[in-house]
Amino acid sequence: MDFLERYKIVRKRTEDICRPLETEDFVVQPVADVSPPKWHIGHTTWFFETFILKNYLQGYKEFNPEYNYVFNSYYETVGARVIRTDRGNLSRPTVKDIFQYRKYVDDSMEQLLSTDYANELNELLELGFNHEEQHQELLLTDIKYILGNNPLFPAYTPSIETIEHSSVESFITIDEGIYEIGFNGSSFCFDNELGRHKVYLPQFEIATTLVTNGAFIEFIEAGGYTDFRHWHAEGLDWVKNNNISAPMYWHSIYGTWHHYTYTGLTPVNPHDLLNHISFYEAAAFAAWKGMRLPTEFEWEAAADKFTWGQRWEWTESAYLPYPGFKKAPGAIGEYNGKFMVNQKVLRGASEVTSPGHSRITYRNFFHPHLRWQYTGIRLAQ
Amino acid sequence: MDFLERYKIVRKRTEDICRPLETEDFVVQPVADVSPPKWHIGHTTWFFETFILKNYLQGYKEFNPEYNYVFNSYYETVGARVIRTDRGNLSRPTVKDIFQYRKYVDDSMEQLLSTDYANELNELLELGFNHEEQHQELLLTDIKYILGNNPLFPAYTPSIETIEHSSVESFITIDEGIYEIGFNGSSFCFDNELGRHKVYLPQFEIATTLVTNGAFIEFIEAGGYTDFRHWHAEGLDWVKNNNISAPMYWHSIYGTWHHYTYTGLTPVNPHDLLNHISFYEAAAFAAWKGMRLPTEFEWEAAADKFTWGQRWEWTESAYLPYPGFKKAPGAIGEYNGKFMVNQKVLRGASEVTSPGHSRITYRNFFHPHLRWQYTGIRLAQ
Amino acid sequence: MDFLERYKIVRKRTEDICRPLETEDFVVQPVADVSPPKWHIGHTTWFFETFILKNYLQGYKEFNPEYNYVFNSYYETVGARVIRTDRGNLSRPTVKDIFQYRKYVDDSMEQLLSTDYANELNELLELGFNHEEQHQELLLTDIKYILGNNPLFPAYTPSIETIEHSSVESFITIDEGIYEIGFNGSSFCFDNELGRHKVYLPQFEIATTLVTNGAFIEFIEAGGYTDFRHWHAEGLDWVKNNNISAPMYWHSIYGTWHHYTYTGLTPVNPHDLLNHISFYEAAAFAAWKGMRLPTEFEWEAAADKFTWGQRWEWTESAYLPYPGFKKAPGAIGEYNGKFMVNQKVLRGASEVTSPGHSRITYRNFFHPHLRWQYTGIRLAQ
Amino acid sequence: MDFLERYKIVRKRTEDICRPLETEDFVVQPVADVSPPKWHIGHTTWFFETFILKNYLQGYKEFNPEYNYVFNSYYETVGARVIRTDRGNLSRPTVKDIFQYRKYVDDSMEQLLSTDYANELNELLELGFNHEEQHQELLLTDIKYILGNNPLFPAYTPSIETIEHSSVESFITIDEGIYEIGFNGSSFCFDNELGRHKVYLPQFEIATTLVTNGAFIEFIEAGGYTDFRHWHAEGLDWVKNNNISAPMYWHSIYGTWHHYTYTGLTPVNPHDLLNHISFYEAAAFAAWKGMRLPTEFEWEAAADKFTWGQRWEWTESAYLPYPGFKKAPGAIGEYNGKFMVNQKVLRGASEVTSPGHSRITYRNFFHPHLRWQYTGIRLAQ
Repeated sequence: MDFLERYKIVRKRTEDICRPLETEDFVVQPVADVSPPKWHIGHTTWFFETFILKNYLQGYKEFNPEYNYVFNSYYETVGARVIRTDRGNLSRPTVKDIFQYRKYVDDSMEQLLSTDYANELNELLELGFNHEEQHQELLLTDIKYILGNNPLFPAYTPSIETIEHSSVESFITIDEGIYEIGFNGSSFCFDNELGRHKVYLPQFEIATTLVTNGAFIEFIEAGGYTDFRHWHAEGLDWVKNNNISAPMYWHSIYGTWHHYTYTGLTPVNPHDLLNHISFYEAAAFAAWKGMRLPTEFEWEAAADKFTWGQRWEWTESAYLPYPGFKKAPGAIGEYNGKFMVNQKVLRGASEVTSPGHSRITYRNFFHPHLRWQYTGIRLAQ
Repeated sequence: MDFLERYKIVRKRTEDICRPLETEDFVVQPVADVSPPKWHIGHTTWFFETFILKNYLQGYKEFNPEYNYVFNSYYETVGARVIRTDRGNLSRPTVKDIFQYRKYVDDSMEQLLSTDYANELNELLELGFNHEEQHQELLLTDIKYILGNNPLFPAYTPSIETIEHSSVESFITIDEGIYEIGFNGSSFCFDNELGRHKVYLPQFEIATTLVTNGAFIEFIEAGGYTDFRHWHAEGLDWVKNNNISAPMYWHSIYGTWHHYTYTGLTPVNPHDLLNHISFYEAAAFAAWKGMRLPTEFEWEAAADKFTWGQRWEWTESAYLPYPGFKKAPGAIGEYNGKFMVNQKVLRGASEVTSPGHSRITYRNFFHPHLRWQYTGIRLAQ
Repeated sequence: MDFLERYKIVRKRTEDICRPLETEDFVVQPVADVSPPKWHIGHTTWFFETFILKNYLQGYKEFNPEYNYVFNSYYETVGARVIRTDRGNLSRPTVKDIFQYRKYVDDSMEQLLSTDYANELNELLELGFNHEEQHQELLLTDIKYILGNNPLFPAYTPSIETIEHSSVESFITIDEGIYEIGFNGSSFCFDNELGRHKVYLPQFEIATTLVTNGAFIEFIEAGGYTDFRHWHAEGLDWVKNNNISAPMYWHSIYGTWHHYTYTGLTPVNPHDLLNHISFYEAAAFAAWKGMRLPTEFEWEAAADKFTWGQRWEWTESAYLPYPGFKKAPGAIGEYNGKFMVNQKVLRGASEVTSPGHSRITYRNFFHPHLRWQYTGIRLAQ
Repeated sequence: MDFLERYKIVRKRTEDICRPLETEDFVVQPVADVSPPKWHIGHTTWFFETFILKNYLQGYKEFNPEYNYVFNSYYETVGARVIRTDRGNLSRPTVKDIFQYRKYVDDSMEQLLSTDYANELNELLELGFNHEEQHQELLLTDIKYILGNNPLFPAYTPSIETIEHSSVESFITIDEGIYEIGFNGSSFCFDNELGRHKVYLPQFEIATTLVTNGAFIEFIEAGGYTDFRHWHAEGLDWVKNNNISAPMYWHSIYGTWHHYTYTGLTPVNPHDLLNHISFYEAAAFAAWKGMRLPTEFEWEAAADKFTWGQRWEWTESAYLPYPGFKKAPGAIGEYNGKFMVNQKVLRGASEVTSPGHSRITYRNFFHPHLRWQYTGIRLAQ
């Protein structure tokens, strides 16, 4: 597939995700971590404009110079930006304005990609596609948060498929030894996966399945949320300060657990995979089982021996640079490295990850208290 | 004019105010005091539905029972409500939904008002009209806040008229004596104006004009914002904690004061009336002039001797009950009384007050640090 | 009594109040409103040093120039100061250091007052005495807070007397008419009492007794704290945010109300006067009784017809300047005027007010949520 | 040395550290992380009482049952506790009370240790000694904070020795390979060091010396604190929100860097080792040099090839469990494991670490923004 075709497919998928939304759904930001959908639409567009069009398309005229201020996410190199908690206060540019901006940039990109552009662009294009795919997943999780925290619980889609899972745990044993960790191919990867390196692992066992809702309900019913022995001290503070007693989106209605899904409020299926739990909850659940979470190295060493891809799986590992990690110069270098403190690595992918965006070496990362992503638990011991 | 005709006029004016808005402008809530326009549209509708239709229109079927939760402002009597800071997080009901709700209630009200309804309704209708007129002014000031704090400074209207004013102060003298204060007529007034009572006033002088932008620029240039001698201790804390150095909406661009108005960002006209200042700023300005603000009783005693109606005028008076003040029973009794602490009375009216909504006995009230209303200064001594 | 003798008596009383304290009790500041006792000891000394000795005693050498920074309370005219919430973080100067400072200043004051000093000093001396008497009451209430919030509930004194009161309310009627309000004598008063002026009062009834613990327990048992109809909106927020369900220092132990007093934790005597309630609680109690609090003018007009002096009595009146109020020039002018916003007037005096410090025109003032002073309720209607 | 002798030496050293303090210095808690010295004195005593005397000394009578509430630090197993930020609000128990408690417990411990007590106690005694040694270091750093943030900058000691260091960096190369990490001896270690395990390390270079004040002043003068390229995103937020522009305790006086040391405020010696920097500053300095911090495994693998012990050295490693880490059952199991999230490992020891308390496998840990410990920088590449 050539880059132009690929560009059109990626960009169209973002718009398809937004199709069920009302204009109002594009605007709100109920918590700082969730961005308004219109911001995602604009920001992914700004990325192509700022890093490609302004540098490589001769005669390109910026759509609106003030948009840099509005749609820059965190790139200090590229100037001032609306602080993250303020994004939901901006009614302008309107959704229509932003789609016009998107069209303008798409037309210019098509023009650029139809010419004989420099090879050095390939890398930036790949980054732009992967960046947009990351925002597609964020769009889906942010939309879920916006609708799932609305008192009317509006549906996003009329139906979704559920696969039933067993709550019986089965484990495989991985031998001790030196394993190679990190990306090694010629295709795209993020800078944080690079620096393939050797890691020594002692023997360990890792589950071939993820934890189900049913298994987690046992934890709840056993008083797991209030038994301090299972929790990190900061986790217990988080539980107390936020009155946490169940995964995100769960509501107990006349004694039955329900949760918000894209179809609205529905009973929790015990055979479905657990979703929307924080690292603290994942670690407490594992401690309650007398087990632990795998490290990201264990996960990568074992991953071709189990199925993955339904949930982002919390690991015990902190998000840190691989040996020899180097930030790229300029704004692109701000992509990953500056977040390498106080976050946890998640491995795998989820049912809302964009197709083709997954890799066994992929390192996702979030703060340990966050739950609005599709997160789950794989046990190790 | 009969009540049905009056109903239609009042309700239409609210919709006219919203006509220049984009859908997105209806949704956001940049600070807690500013409500999303769509909330005003729904709340004024909910008021007629809750207090009139549900009690007086036989067979009336609520539009949507969940709307009570969404559109109740502060009436504890009428059940749970979305807390004020959360209103801007709600994308649903959509603007279209709310206008359908509005239409549904308007149709039912027309039906009710075309019949021979009980006389006891007159009072509630008057309250509903006046309530909606209050929200019309809030709509206009909230819209100004939403657009005026957007980095694109979008215009609300293509042009507005300005009347030029002199910055020369002239004073009239009011004799000492007993004055009658409070509402005395047979037409509508709010409960907080009732209880006409005698007040003894010593002789005082009060300005016949309001302070202009030009006069306030002198205060700024004299270092007024940083000279603690003019300020209440809490006012000075407010200035420091919020880095206040000019009225709201003012920006110094290359050394020239500009401000956001409904037409966008324009130079400050020194002959226009000062606008958007807090009580703290009003009191500090008066102290700097060696004068003071009038009390609300002085204002009322003198008001037929000067022109008023362009700005809500901060008074020295705290918002307190008049002698013999009684709360009405039920939800309507929550209208005014429970706010009678820590607020300041403003007298007069402003250029965005609804026509016919002004009275010499009208008591407006806000916390002393708030500035997004059309507020100004009249000096006394 | 001459000024020297008076000086010694006032200063000694402050030290007597501190005699039962351990060194550690002088140091802590459990909440921002409560100052460490050693700060009071130093601050009252600093007052005489700064406003009298440095200006009027020839050759006076400051004890320690850095103490100005430490012991200035809020006088912006006199330079930087330790912010109020930081006072409890300072272990130095030590208690011993501060008593040495006190001795040093006392010796210098004795030297000054033994000479033939200028008459203009009389006014400053009076202010210094009254200022120290105010701090004596604060010392007593701050000590109560420090010991009463310690989990060991240490006693301050082995015994205190209690006077029993009836919970039957009796009211006197005051006729409508013009009353003179404000200080009129030749002795000392604060600037906020000056400007004797006429006030017109409608007829009213005012209780001759204060509310007892027993009467307030009825309010609690009737669900008074949770019935929103009695509360100001801000009062209800305060109740909810701080989980308030009884007066300060009250603890329910096996179903019986106890409270901390200077002798330790003891059962609440229903015939004792209610103490340590906020304005919000006072107003809610009055509303529950179908009555109200008096205004400060009503209180002053009626005060020679009832007994007062056991509790500071919350009034409905906001703390505002009397007609013609003028701030004194310089630091002394910061004494009262700059606090005239968002506070409520309390009238009367309390059992911990310094002897001779009370007056019928005295205007005490606090924010409506504060409770650590000796506050009570007198009803009006 | 037998356990009784060892007990006496350890306990005496804690008291020696407190000898220069005034009573007031024992009481205050200027920030949440710094505990009042009297709390340390009581808490280390409570540790022996709770975990040893109450379980092993027959007939032991608790000194005061309420002290458990006051002196428990974070052990949920052992009941309620004063929350950390409130410790500085407690004037009682007094310093004298606490030293009496200490004496009482010491007498009982002597009695126990003079008998033929069970061997199982040895492990608890070792933990008690090491626990107290940890608090000795905290005492010294907390005292420094209390005095160093007092505007009078009182000295703790009349003189301290300084060793001069070169700012020329020299590096040694460590070969790639498998290294054994973790404690392996028969003497005492903490549970977090256990589980000696293999780690594969690529080749790396590590500095033989620590960064000096002089080298860090170059970073400051090069604008290091404001150049976002060197910082983690959270580090930059920390710098901005706290107005950080130099290490803790540094003050620029007439253009010369001074810092608070135990002797008071003195000029910064450029040849002394840098002290009191956060992980964020350490990482930013390393990035500015084009280098990085070592991991804790690199540090341990290389440590016998350089001098260490003057500063706790920030590593890149997050504080995580070693393979096979198991929490002990009961309260002792809360010692380390529950803190294994969001903290960084520091290796080495400092000049205020208790003698004999250091080990090459020792894992200290703090949140990345904390600076009041003796922290320094060793570079790697």
